[in-house]
Amino acid sequence: MTQLANFMSDNAAAACPEVMAAVMAAGPAQPAGYDGDDWSRRLDAVFEELFGRPCAVLAVGTGTAANALALACLVPPWGAVACHTEAHVHVDECGAPEFFTGGAKLLLCPGDHGKLTPASVAAGLSSHRGDVHQVQMAALSITQATECGTVYRPHEVAALAAHARAQGWRVHMDGARFANAAAFLGGNPADMVADVDALSFGCIKNGGLGAEAIVLFDCSLADQLRWRRKRAGQMPSKGRFNAAQILAMVEDGVWLRNAAAANAGAQVLAQAAGERLLHPVEANEVFVQLAPGEPERLRAQGFLFYDWGAADSNEARLVVSWDTPAEDAARLAAALAAG
Amino acid sequence: MTQLANFMSDNAAAACPEVMAAVMAAGPAQPAGYDGDDWSRRLDAVFEELFGRPCAVLAVGTGTAANALALACLVPPWGAVACHTEAHVHVDECGAPEFFTGGAKLLLCPGDHGKLTPASVAAGLSSHRGDVHQVQMAALSITQATECGTVYRPHEVAALAAHARAQGWRVHMDGARFANAAAFLGGNPADMVADVDALSFGCIKNGGLGAEAIVLFDCSLADQLRWRRKRAGQMPSKGRFNAAQILAMVEDGVWLRNAAAANAGAQVLAQAAGERLLHPVEANEVFVQLAPGEPERLRAQGFLFYDWGAADSNEARLVVSWDTPAEDAARLAAALAAG
Amino acid sequence: MTQLANFMSDNAAAACPEVMAAVMAAGPAQPAGYDGDDWSRRLDAVFEELFGRPCAVLAVGTGTAANALALACLVPPWGAVACHTEAHVHVDECGAPEFFTGGAKLLLCPGDHGKLTPASVAAGLSSHRGDVHQVQMAALSITQATECGTVYRPHEVAALAAHARAQGWRVHMDGARFANAAAFLGGNPADMVADVDALSFGCIKNGGLGAEAIVLFDCSLADQLRWRRKRAGQMPSKGRFNAAQILAMVEDGVWLRNAAAANAGAQVLAQAAGERLLHPVEANEVFVQLAPGEPERLRAQGFLFYDWGAADSNEARLVVSWDTPAEDAARLAAALAAG
Amino acid sequence: MTQLANFMSDNAAAACPEVMAAVMAAGPAQPAGYDGDDWSRRLDAVFEELFGRPCAVLAVGTGTAANALALACLVPPWGAVACHTEAHVHVDECGAPEFFTGGAKLLLCPGDHGKLTPASVAAGLSSHRGDVHQVQMAALSITQATECGTVYRPHEVAALAAHARAQGWRVHMDGARFANAAAFLGGNPADMVADVDALSFGCIKNGGLGAEAIVLFDCSLADQLRWRRKRAGQMPSKGRFNAAQILAMVEDGVWLRNAAAANAGAQVLAQAAGERLLHPVEANEVFVQLAPGEPERLRAQGFLFYDWGAADSNEARLVVSWDTPAEDAARLAAALAAG
Repeated sequence: MTQLANFMSDNAAAACPEVMAAVMAAGPAQPAGYDGDDWSRRLDAVFEELFGRPCAVLAVGTGTAANALALACLVPPWGAVACHTEAHVHVDECGAPEFFTGGAKLLLCPGDHGKLTPASVAAGLSSHRGDVHQVQMAALSITQATECGTVYRPHEVAALAAHARAQGWRVHMDGARFANAAAFLGGNPADMVADVDALSFGCIKNGGLGAEAIVLFDCSLADQLRWRRKRAGQMPSKGRFNAAQILAMVEDGVWLRNAAAANAGAQVLAQAAGERLLHPVEANEVFVQLAPGEPERLRAQGFLFYDWGAADSNEARLVVSWDTPAEDAARLAAALAAG
Repeated sequence: MTQLANFMSDNAAAACPEVMAAVMAAGPAQPAGYDGDDWSRRLDAVFEELFGRPCAVLAVGTGTAANALALACLVPPWGAVACHTEAHVHVDECGAPEFFTGGAKLLLCPGDHGKLTPASVAAGLSSHRGDVHQVQMAALSITQATECGTVYRPHEVAALAAHARAQGWRVHMDGARFANAAAFLGGNPADMVADVDALSFGCIKNGGLGAEAIVLFDCSLADQLRWRRKRAGQMPSKGRFNAAQILAMVEDGVWLRNAAAANAGAQVLAQAAGERLLHPVEANEVFVQLAPGEPERLRAQGFLFYDWGAADSNEARLVVSWDTPAEDAARLAAALAAG
Repeated sequence: MTQLANFMSDNAAAACPEVMAAVMAAGPAQPAGYDGDDWSRRLDAVFEELFGRPCAVLAVGTGTAANALALACLVPPWGAVACHTEAHVHVDECGAPEFFTGGAKLLLCPGDHGKLTPASVAAGLSSHRGDVHQVQMAALSITQATECGTVYRPHEVAALAAHARAQGWRVHMDGARFANAAAFLGGNPADMVADVDALSFGCIKNGGLGAEAIVLFDCSLADQLRWRRKRAGQMPSKGRFNAAQILAMVEDGVWLRNAAAANAGAQVLAQAAGERLLHPVEANEVFVQLAPGEPERLRAQGFLFYDWGAADSNEARLVVSWDTPAEDAARLAAALAAG
Repeated sequence: MTQLANFMSDNAAAACPEVMAAVMAAGPAQPAGYDGDDWSRRLDAVFEELFGRPCAVLAVGTGTAANALALACLVPPWGAVACHTEAHVHVDECGAPEFFTGGAKLLLCPGDHGKLTPASVAAGLSSHRGDVHQVQMAALSITQATECGTVYRPHEVAALAAHARAQGWRVHMDGARFANAAAFLGGNPADMVADVDALSFGCIKNGGLGAEAIVLFDCSLADQLRWRRKRAGQMPSKGRFNAAQILAMVEDGVWLRNAAAANAGAQVLAQAAGERLLHPVEANEVFVQLAPGEPERLRAQGFLFYDWGAADSNEARLVVSWDTPAEDAARLAAALAAG
């Protein structure tokens, strides 16, 4: 019988032991519900230490909610958000940003390997006039790591943020795989978010159970976010369970260890794929140009993954999770190397 | 030192052992995310057995989300929902129904002890004409158990639903404490939801961790709800954790046992309060008319609870949870009996 | 054959000659569309002279649009607006405020003869806590003249505005019949809007064709209103026609003359109704307690009007327009006097 | 002194005599407001005769409102509309479709000369999967005449509509310049809207004052549209003025005569521009590749027009209105011919 090895996505991975333990520890009754518990009240401080500056942190239940709520705090209903053509907020959230913002528009910009640059943003908006007949540019949203598995260097984020600031836009970072980017960069996480207004800090793909953090570096948005979160049904009465997960990920470096494990697995695949890689492998996603017939052969060997790109293009996306067995990665690498 | 005893709310109670065990069991990686797991795929069948008729069940993260998403499936943006003046959807959800429906209105109706009747609904809407200049009545929303801790009998629900049907309205039931109502009534839960279109089936207050179920008895609404849920950020990638909690509550009768325990504690308090009760005690909430000075005396003894009603009215709400220690209830009963 | 005399509403009245002449004068092609024409560009100055302080004025096509757009500039989606139980924004706009605001709530307050007072507003909101679980009070909306045909005196508006300011709320005035109120008060219109943030200045009921003015006394809201207006489809390319109407009403005192004529007709009816009046008659609406059978008798004589209040209450609303023939009013007065 | 000649847009043109006369005729008081007048009640029948099939017709104040309200009746909040990259609904309505639909998305498709084809629509949507994580394709919106001044032939509309039907989408036509297209095609207008669900029938650019018609060929949407229109503040109390304009345009062929005049002027320019035309000239818009310095020279001669395309591309848009003086067109033609 064929042994299955799952490279479909990191979103069905296990919850990691540290997160599970934290959830268990939060089980008993507490004096106060919502955000009144000891876990929720520590969120701000923990992220302030991580990022070295004041921030307001609220937990929500999904990455989609994190992105859409953050954007709603940054852009008005008549506003526009510049983002990459392949951005998750545009492609994979069933219109959540439009719903939460009250109808703002996403304006799509190109960019090699999933990365925007000031020039590519300008190109994407070249026909946008901005008079009263048009939506008003209000924010830039970038994904870190990108949808192509690449990672913005701090100076690249800074250049984009400067471009945004110069035009009065806010800056949002979709960090569903922020941990993978941080593990790749290896430096001070604070350098990754300089001049960012709001970060969706992902946990779920990285070993979490069901909580993500919205980190507002513009703390003046915190009240607005609290009301928006409540009215979006994203403020659970037992908020401690969400907060406890996030703390467990961040406080002891679990987030970086899990992400590093996933990244390492991706590198094993990248080595094997060699020149067939479609994008640099910098996080935990590997995009490979397969040969005709190869997808079927790999699947016959038990490897699960998504076809990518246009139909019949034989492109594949291979995602390594924090808990992907090393032998699975090794076996897939061997299969790829065999062509 | 004073021993604290918490009667503030059931929403900061412990998660019960069965739920915790189910969450642990759902920890390992799964072949598929979102609703593709074995737990999520069993939800429909489990509720169909419980209620004896076809239904479509989707898990969400909060009661507010359950109510607002359900209502959004039942009423258009220009629609109106008749509900009790004290209904949670009106009072305590920061406008979530308005947000999710795209701006529908809640029209408030009176009713003794938190309960609507066909006559009270008609009275509440007596000045509503329904021409094109007004929002269009589209649904009735009732709370079971009510915000006053009372329970609709099946025939009362049936009468309300018949009233709604006769006018072409849909019927929503906010069942944040449906379990407490079911435990009180003691009969077949199917009788409690006859002619209801959508039920918010509460778990969190009753020992859950962070999941509620939306039960659609009108299965034709299921696709719409799936899209609405996704775009609301209420469709977690590890959806198994939500589904597992709900299954744990329902499959082995945990929901009824937990609710019965909470209801029993409330009866202890009710006996002690005697003629000072403001509403019949039928679920796990006790509303008591205290004497001047009595709130302070009770708090000095370590009892935590909310003042209720108008300022200085000396009304108190006492909520018993599934895990409230029997000795806490006994001690509060004694204090109440002492006046 | 019975001669019909229409007291249904002022909203199907003729457009007055001055407005018609202005529309004709605006017919020829102009160098610029939207608000770029000479009429639109004069709006601010004309209202600044009228009210003696800076304001930004934008024309829209209906009173509903004026109210809803103004409120959307004053309250966030999670906000609440205190208004009278009978306020047009609540009763007769099919949820326009909810639509334009993105789901804000109207919280209803009582008040004799259609008028709010600080005490009645406080009473209406007595159970509103304002914590994160509730919508956030953000504005007070008052109607001038009221839905009961009464008129707020300047000191009454000032007291309400002071009450609002003290709690950080904005102030909106629905002035669909502002002209009738101004004609009744007779003083400086500037005194009527002291401390008001946004006024819906009505023209249509008072002899206009199809334009109302939103007057923003908080000019910082003007940009936001421009974008909201455009995206609401309320910024016509031939905006000159709307602006020209408004200028024609205001510049030569037409608005006060038309309103005075309507008010005078209402006084004729009021005299005849005597002690049967349900509300003081201060503008152009007369609410009368008829006797059983009297509605039918009046209609048989050709008088058209709306029944009011509860079914079978024999209450009637009689509205006099700027162009209601004096003989019609006299004839109805005689009929009323005859009982 | 230089004689100005305005080719900026048709949207600041004169209102034509027939429309002005109709507005005057609608001046006197009427027995009923809103849509209760004799003009509004004739709209359905007049368009049923024009298009040879049942339809429901409601007047609104702007083309933006017509488009956005029509789309809101065709797509749900989680829906998507395929439209051309340059479509007015995407580019020039400040997000009105997103606002009115409750957050639907416009998905952009390419197409030469402003025209979509089934193949270009398929290409534009090639990466759209349509699973629950994405917005759901629900409608196709085409512009007739297009933003490039070209005209869909009836068989081209039929092919697009068939493509849409095959996938369960609705079909919307933005007919802001439908009259120009009809005048160009010269056949039966009914052939232009076969299989269209909702048409925004433009009047304002073609000699109207301030009214457009929404023509619903799916009459089952009429109630929904009435409620949406009211709550959008697009249902004026003196609705007769809007209806009268539309009737004046349609009943005696004014719409085709005005459009033919504008089209003829455009042909004069097209002849002069010759091979410098960027798009075929089929309606009343002419897009010309000017030479470096030529825009300035033309403006120095008094010609007003918009630069088009990318900055410094020297592309110009020249719009001829129904009332553009023939000598203005002749003079511009001469200037263009002179290079």
